[in-house]
This record gives sequence, C-alpha cells and structure tokens, in this order.
Amino acid sequence: MQVVVPFAAESPKTRLESVLSPEERATFARAMLVDVLEAIIETGYEPTVASTAPLSLESGFDLADDTVDLDSSAATLSDAGVAVEVDDRPLTDAVNARFEATEEPVAVVMADLALATPEALEDLFARTADVAVAPGLGGGTNALVVSHPEFRVDYHGASYLDHCRIAREVGASLETVDSFRLATDIDEPADLVEPLVHGSEHKHAPSYLRDLGFELETTDGRVDVARTARDRSK
Amino acid sequence: MQVVVPFAAESPKTRLESVLSPEERATFARAMLVDVLEAIIETGYEPTVASTAPLSLESGFDLADDTVDLDSSAATLSDAGVAVEVDDRPLTDAVNARFEATEEPVAVVMADLALATPEALEDLFARTADVAVAPGLGGGTNALVVSHPEFRVDYHGASYLDHCRIAREVGASLETVDSFRLATDIDEPADLVEPLVHGSEHKHAPSYLRDLGFELETTDGRVDVARTARDRSK
Repeated sequence: MQVVVPFAAESPKTRLESVLSPEERATFARAMLVDVLEAIIETGYEPTVASTAPLSLESGFDLADDTVDLDSSAATLSDAGVAVEVDDRPLTDAVNARFEATEEPVAVVMADLALATPEALEDLFARTADVAVAPGLGGGTNALVVSHPEFRVDYHGASYLDHCRIAREVGASLETVDSFRLATDIDEPADLVEPLVHGSEHKHAPSYLRDLGFELETTDGRVDVARTARDRSK
Repeated sequence: MQVVVPFAAESPKTRLESVLSPEERATFARAMLVDVLEAIIETGYEPTVASTAPLSLESGFDLADDTVDLDSSAATLSDAGVAVEVDDRPLTDAVNARFEATEEPVAVVMADLALATPEALEDLFARTADVAVAPGLGGGTNALVVSHPEFRVDYHGASYLDHCRIAREVGASLETVDSFRLATDIDEPADLVEPLVHGSEHKHAPSYLRDLGFELETTDGRVDVARTARDRSK
C-alpha cells in the first residue's frame, strides 16, 4: 500500500491568520506534517509527501522561524524513507493521479491531523473494504484508503458525503472509521484547543503552540485558547 | 452497570439561540435525548434520565412544537424501561451522587451526542479500565464509565484533562476512547453540520433539523449549515 500525504507548502492554514503570522502558520503546518509522518512511519509504512512546492527535508524545511527545531526530525524522516514529490495540481487532481498511477491500494492522509496516532492510522489501514473513509469535522474527508480501481476523490464541499456517493456509483464497498483523532483537522483558531488537550508532549505541533504562548482558557462553553505574549527573543 | 443520561430540561442548548427559538431548542434537545436513549437501549442497557425538571415520557414530553412527533418514541422508551428521575443539582453534583449511591459501575452519557451509535457506546461500555472516557470537542467529557469507588467527576472547564488528573490522583486506571461519534456534542450552530452529514435517516434530531429547513451549505472551508424558510403551517 502506498501512503500519500498531500501538503500545501505555500500559504498554508490561512484560516488561522487571526492568531498566527504567515511565518508561524508555515512553521505550524510543517510541525503538524512531521507529526503525521512520524505517526505513519510508526505503522510501518513509508509515506510520500505530495507537496505543492519543493520542500527540503534535508535542510529542515528551510524555516526562518527557529522557535521549533524541525531540522533533526526532518533528517530522521529522510532516513526513514519519506519521499517528497512536487505536485502543484489542485488536491483532488493530485490525489486522483496517484490512484491512476498504481494498482496498489493507496492511503491518503491529510497533513493537518495533529492528533493522529499510529493506533488510529493502523485501524484505518487495516480496513478491508474497497474504500475506507475517516470523516473530518464539518463534512470533510481526513483520511481514506482506496483499493477500488474506479474510485476517485472529490474534495470540494461535503466530501465525506460525495465519497460515500462515489463509492456507491462505482460499486465499491465502503467503511467509515469512527475516530476522533482522525476526525480532528486543524483549520480554525478554535481547533487549536485539540492539540493542546490531546497532543502528546513529544509531538511538534502542540509544543510549538505552547512555545508561541498558546494556552487553554476556560469559558462558559467549550474550552478556548488564548495566546499570551512571550519573550520570543530568549 | 447503571447508565445515566443527565438532561437539562429547562432552557437547554442556549448556545444555539442564534439559529433556533427557545421552543425549537427545547424540542431539538428532546429529539437528541431520544436518539441517545434509543442507542443505549440497543446496547442492552436500561438508561435512567437524570433530568433537572420533571419530564414526562408518557405524554411525549409535553411538547408544544408538533414539527416532530416524539410521542410514540417516548412511549417506546417507557416500555423499554427508561426511567426519569428529577435531580436539580448542578451536573457535577448530580453525577457524583450517582457514584456514591451504588457499588456498581456507572456510565454517564451526555444527552446531546446526536451521532451516538450502539456500536460506539458498546465500545465504551466494554472497556475494562477503572475509568473509561470518551472526550468531547473542546476539552470536554462526553461519556464515561466509572468503576472505581473514589473517582469523582468535575465537568467545569477542560473536564477531560481534569478527569485524567483525578483518575491519577485516586490511583484509577484510565482508558480514552477514540470515537468521533462520541466526541461530537451539539452545542453551537456549526455543530449542526454533523447530524445533517452523519445522522441516519431514522434519527429524530437530524430529521427535525431538516424539517426546520436546515441544509448543508458549502463554503470555502468546512461545510456550514443554512436555514431556509419553510412553510411550517403545512
């Protein structure tokens, strides 16, 4: 099975612009990517990053932000067999091209699943249906495994419902994976609560958020995040 | 094992006030309650509703809103052994009183888990740790099973983290259940997407939302909901 992690290397995570600078968003997106890749590697697979722009693992992602050290992790990823391939097509086209280029099953895992664990991914990867989908919050598709030759993705809109429909149309059996860890993608400021609550201490994304001064804030409803000023010069 | 479903019978779901009238919020909360109770009954348990105010299953909840017919469901719930007990204490106190009143394990399942399925609940109920927790979005605790005599809940703030800490403090083993269906409570307007996407057709809560004119709306990011005017007089 091939495991592909699409990555939007340019201007990632724009919906976090109210709480993170462009540089911070770039770093945070890469921190989540590393966490996701490390979780995949622990399942025994060698993921390929399909990046919209060149991304140098060897040089630690060429980050200007030195708050988080992804250099050593990136080197480890290279050693573990992670490959980066540039594909600047829209997400849907880039993923469907992967399906068309192989007869192997293909797993597609989003790069912003900050809570992904090897256990949750193993559960997805072990499914035997023609199409196994891990839905995301808000009707999305956060990860899927496809072993049916005619199935194609369509990530626009409520893609989970579209993927169920497409599976029906091509006669593919479908399983839905019930995982909070795979359902949680990090797109909006309120989502930052989740890596702070559920991200383990040795993960890069929650560490980076904490280094930036994010902490949990109790409100009347769900817990929110607040960002405190930190001395970034130290 | 006892299964308790706390229910705030008065002014429920206030954070939905921008999209639902008080009467609609009351009906929607009861529709979700019925869905949750039916899912629990399918696991083979007879849940008890711990309601903050009297709640008549026999009379179909005394609803003024006739958009949804919960009468027959409520009668079925009575037949299935569902009991209603009034407990007007704050949630934390009401739940802890349950733990103190029995030596049996106690499961506590929130009434607004509109996606809860028998399968997801069975997975939780089958856990053998002293405390099994299904976290909710935003740091909450949506369901838990407690079989340790000293464990107590504290639902204020990031209760998932508090429950992990309390389990450690009393020496109770802890398991976290990774379920999107149990993590999804319905508190805020954006949450209404989830029952519309993942709620099965024979569930009351998504049917009621559709009857009120809610439908999915594709935006740039996650799918949102929109409410269209419907002729409610028909």
